[in-house]
This record gives sequence, C-alpha cells and structure tokens, in this order.
Amino acid sequence: MNFLEERIARDGVVKEGNVLKVDSFLNHQMDVELFDKMGEEYARRFAGKKITKILTIEASGIGIASVVALHFHVPVVFAKKSKSINLDGEMYTAEVESFTHKNVSHVIVSKKFLTPEDHILIIDDFLANGCALQGLIQIAKQAGATVEGIGIAIEKGFQSGGRIIRNLGYQLESLAIVDSMDAATGSITFREQ
Amino acid sequence: MNFLEERIARDGVVKEGNVLKVDSFLNHQMDVELFDKMGEEYARRFAGKKITKILTIEASGIGIASVVALHFHVPVVFAKKSKSINLDGEMYTAEVESFTHKNVSHVIVSKKFLTPEDHILIIDDFLANGCALQGLIQIAKQAGATVEGIGIAIEKGFQSGGRIIRNLGYQLESLAIVDSMDAATGSITFREQ
Repeated sequence: MNFLEERIARDGVVKEGNVLKVDSFLNHQMDVELFDKMGEEYARRFAGKKITKILTIEASGIGIASVVALHFHVPVVFAKKSKSINLDGEMYTAEVESFTHKNVSHVIVSKKFLTPEDHILIIDDFLANGCALQGLIQIAKQAGATVEGIGIAIEKGFQSGGRIIRNLGYQLESLAIVDSMDAATGSITFREQ
Repeated sequence: MNFLEERIARDGVVKEGNVLKVDSFLNHQMDVELFDKMGEEYARRFAGKKITKILTIEASGIGIASVVALHFHVPVVFAKKSKSINLDGEMYTAEVESFTHKNVSHVIVSKKFLTPEDHILIIDDFLANGCALQGLIQIAKQAGATVEGIGIAIEKGFQSGGRIIRNLGYQLESLAIVDSMDAATGSITFREQ
C-alpha cells in the first residue's frame, strides 16, 4: 500500500451504498502535509510533461490542487459551480450531471484564464462516474487547451469513470483505486498498481 | 507597498460600486506562490501563538488556507455553505447574512473537527462587512475553541468589518487594507501599516 492507501485504510469510513467518508483528512478537514506528498507523487508521475496550469473544481478539489501546484510552479484555476448558464460570453460552461444529487448543474470558468497555449493538469479529490471530470475536460477543450494529464486522489474502481477516461486516451493517475468496500466489516480493497 | 499590495496595484481591477476584482491571482485563478509568501508573512505575524488548526470558508478561502497551513504544520477545516440548517446535531451551524446577495445562508462545520482543545487561526481572502468572519468566530465559539488570530488577504477598510473585529479584541492581520478605490481612474489607496 502507498501512503494514501494506508491513510484511507486507517481513517476512511465505509458507509452503506458504497460511500467512502474521508472527511477527516481529504475533503472537510484537510491534511495539507498529505497533499504535499501527493504533489510530490504527481510531479513524479507527470515528469516530462509540460504543465502550465492546474484545473480543478470547487470546493473539495481546491485544497489539493493548491498544494499540488506548488510542485509544478503553476497557477490553479478552479471551475465554479453555477445554477444557471452564464450567457454573457465571458465564461466557458459545461453541464455536469450528478448521480448523487440527481440533478444537472453547470461548471464555469472565465475565458480569461484558459487559452490555447495552456497545457493543463486536472486535479480532483474523487473520481466515480466521471461526470465532473468530463465537464472539466469539456471546458479545457472549449478553451483549445491541451489536457496533459489527470491526477485523482481516490478513484472508485467499481464505477465506470476511470475506464471511460482511460479509454479516451488520457493519462489518468489515481493515487488510490478502490475496487471494493464492505460497510459491514469496514474493509477496503485497493487495486494493485 | 508590500508584495500583496504591489500585486493588487498591478493586477487588481476596480469596478463601479467599490468592487475590487482580483480573480486573476486570488479567487478564481490562484497564484499559489503568492499564497506561499502570504503563509510566510502570517507565520511571522502570528509567531509565538499556539495554532492547532486553520479554519476557513468555501470556496475562495480554501486555496489560501491550504498553502498557508503548510507554514503552520496544521490541518485546515473549511466551513461549508449550506442552504438549510443541519438539525442532526453533528454540525456546528452559523447564520451568515450576505449584503452582496441580499440573503441569509448558513455555514456548517462537522463537530468532529473542532474541539475545546483547538487553537484556531481563521484565514479568508476578503473582509468587508465581516459577516462571514463573524459566522466562523461563532462556530469556533460553539466548539469551545480559542480563536488565536485572523489572517485576511484583502480588507476593505472603508467597510466596518475590520473595525468591529478589532474592537472585539481579536488579532486581525490583513495583508492589504484598501482605504479607497476609484473605478474611473482605477486607483487604489492602501492604508499605511
């Protein structure tokens, strides 16, 4: 097990319905020294790639992306969640379907901050069905920017998001891939990487 | 001018209605190396204080707080904005009035992550009327935690938030205090510190 898998095994809580709670260190309380290690690891996995900007989505992606960005010496742009499509032409907009909340929302990024010259590393905390990620990729495409890679903390390997994104040819690096969880015993099985 | 004032003078945009846009480096696109310098400066200003946790509020506080936390070697807890009060007793809740959006919202923090043993540094990007900050202080009080200090990036000195918070006896450190702005000329006057 790597450092993130060890931390999930120790402090993650498995709930009914394939819910993995990691709010004590990842997405409500945040262990920034863990994020720093994650940054080191992404820098290793994406070594040699030209990255000019990190793209993430509010709210829980922002902390990880900010600390990771220190390892790449590039700015972070975070997509904002918006109830309405912005029609003034100053924003890139993508639709994101949420299976959890059973609704469609929008993510927006100001056109000022993504350009065809940008080489983007997308960072997020979770990957399950991949809808949020597909929204971010769509926004990068609208900007004419190149997605050089995608760094995820925890991928739910039993949902389809990761497979779809890899099939599309993206370098997707998930630091922990959960293949199965058992709420009764609390056990978590990670994919060998 | 210090490094943040210089950056605001260079890249901030003054709009009608006392609006200061800093979305190119602070709260949409984020210059994490600037945040790192801010962390150094807060570490200097709060030297000698025992800090166990940084508290901030989503979304734009999270990036700054995460990078600043690396200088204090403590975790970050971010308050979430919520439409409804959570009544299951697991959350600290405070009301926050928004003058910008003319509504009342709630901020919530899980009771697991703030305790009477905590010594808190509150970090946020902006201070204007101080409503969000008062919500965070309220939450810290509910937890029985001690607020050791408050670190703000940009304070609008012509609004009352900073004065109120300082009158309550808190050590409030704003790295830039804007005393006046002029949308017609784009000029910004900083308070001497």
